[in-house]
Amino acid sequence: MTQHIFDKALALHHSDIRVGHFTGMTSPDYWNMVGPFGGTTAAVVLQSVLRHPDLLGAPIALTVNYAAAIEAGAFDVQATAVRTNRSTQHWTVQITQAGASGAPQVTTTATVVTAVRRDTWSLNDLPMPAVPGPGQVERMTIGPKGVAWIERYDMRPVRGTVPTQWDGSGDHSETLLWLRDIDPRPLDFPALAAMSDMFFPRVWLRRAKPVPAGTVSITTYFHADAAQLAEVGTGYLLGRAVGQQFQNGFFDQSAQLWSEAGALLATSNQIVYFKE
Amino acid sequence: MTQHIFDKALALHHSDIRVGHFTGMTSPDYWNMVGPFGGTTAAVVLQSVLRHPDLLGAPIALTVNYAAAIEAGAFDVQATAVRTNRSTQHWTVQITQAGASGAPQVTTTATVVTAVRRDTWSLNDLPMPAVPGPGQVERMTIGPKGVAWIERYDMRPVRGTVPTQWDGSGDHSETLLWLRDIDPRPLDFPALAAMSDMFFPRVWLRRAKPVPAGTVSITTYFHADAAQLAEVGTGYLLGRAVGQQFQNGFFDQSAQLWSEAGALLATSNQIVYFKE
Repeated sequence: MTQHIFDKALALHHSDIRVGHFTGMTSPDYWNMVGPFGGTTAAVVLQSVLRHPDLLGAPIALTVNYAAAIEAGAFDVQATAVRTNRSTQHWTVQITQAGASGAPQVTTTATVVTAVRRDTWSLNDLPMPAVPGPGQVERMTIGPKGVAWIERYDMRPVRGTVPTQWDGSGDHSETLLWLRDIDPRPLDFPALAAMSDMFFPRVWLRRAKPVPAGTVSITTYFHADAAQLAEVGTGYLLGRAVGQQFQNGFFDQSAQLWSEAGALLATSNQIVYFKE
Repeated sequence: MTQHIFDKALALHHSDIRVGHFTGMTSPDYWNMVGPFGGTTAAVVLQSVLRHPDLLGAPIALTVNYAAAIEAGAFDVQATAVRTNRSTQHWTVQITQAGASGAPQVTTTATVVTAVRRDTWSLNDLPMPAVPGPGQVERMTIGPKGVAWIERYDMRPVRGTVPTQWDGSGDHSETLLWLRDIDPRPLDFPALAAMSDMFFPRVWLRRAKPVPAGTVSITTYFHADAAQLAEVGTGYLLGRAVGQQFQNGFFDQSAQLWSEAGALLATSNQIVYFKE
């Protein structure tokens, strides 16, 4: 079986010298406009923790701060378990690249919490919106030209697609879409981390104006365990994203990802820089 | 003028030896059940960045991970500007305390993004709910016994107060309340960071059952600048919090804080551990 293109993007080489130190390569397949798709970067951060020999449990929370665009080529990831409790573990992760002088420059800071889950009372308090199934919705074909990563996904917008008329007519910031990898790949935590960053900038939709914008920080909470993700397999997820406040150069985005069966697998928030 | 009790809790002594290294003391006035009120810890993290000589701009995003309860007494804070761009700055912050062996133990990891804001198109896409004003709502007097920090705030619940009957009758997880410091103090970023962690555990409300619970990680986005906070002054904020998914030991909480005039000052999310 050929390696999936997303697994290639996630491939990390574990250093023999330093525990938790990995090297990776940016993926042209998931390239964004001026660096890798932020979702891939989030997935790489998470992958470094999942690959760490000291890992306890499964991902609960992931925060990734995009300090600078990662340049095409090699990068270093350092994952450090700074505190391990009985059932939770706290991680810091940094991605660095050699700068012009050769000295390592931080491109990405991150924190991760992992935990051993126990069976408890559970409840979904945010049901999946009633929408037509993925088979009833057409695949999106519109996207910014030259953005590779978008082509790696099958996106089927139900509401709030990328405007086709940039005429300032926007009146809401909500997108609902079905999505999955274009080449089927069973859902796992890195994929879910990447998919949480799937949505185009809310400001484009709200204003029907394509101003420059980029995620500054994203936080994703994982509500599913590995078994539940395996159950979703290669099925579609329903993603929802909405902006809450647009203010002097930054807006936030609140997002949710449900399985087609209606399980809320992840909730995610981000703060995004925009111009004008 | 006497120093406000919150400013005492935030007091940090800047080390002369190491840039960004501060020492502080836990505050009995903001004590929670087994450690300081998490909101105070978030405020201390932010304060270390605000006090740092290299600070650029104002807070945009704050993520605080509670790795272990801070014990009563002295603690160390290290704030590091890991990347400074033209208009944004990325920080890592750690709080440590001497462990049993005397070696420093990490109690708190955090990341902060600060930025110089520019005037841009701005819009509130999540209007404040229509509720009776703070003068029309009674101050909450019910709270867990022996929890000091709750007494430091004037909380006026509009909806979703702490259950008085723990009879398993809960049917929603939404709280709406007016809040401000019980002793008036002009709003600033550390206060807003603390107030974002103001809400009692959603699981108590949803289940009408007081199971053990504690915040694991909180992320707050700041949508206001210092001038807008100054405008709010000592006025009330309307806080809203709701749970989205409760699953095998963890639930998330989505929260918003508006000024009485309806400006969305901060949006905040957290993931919370719970038992049973």
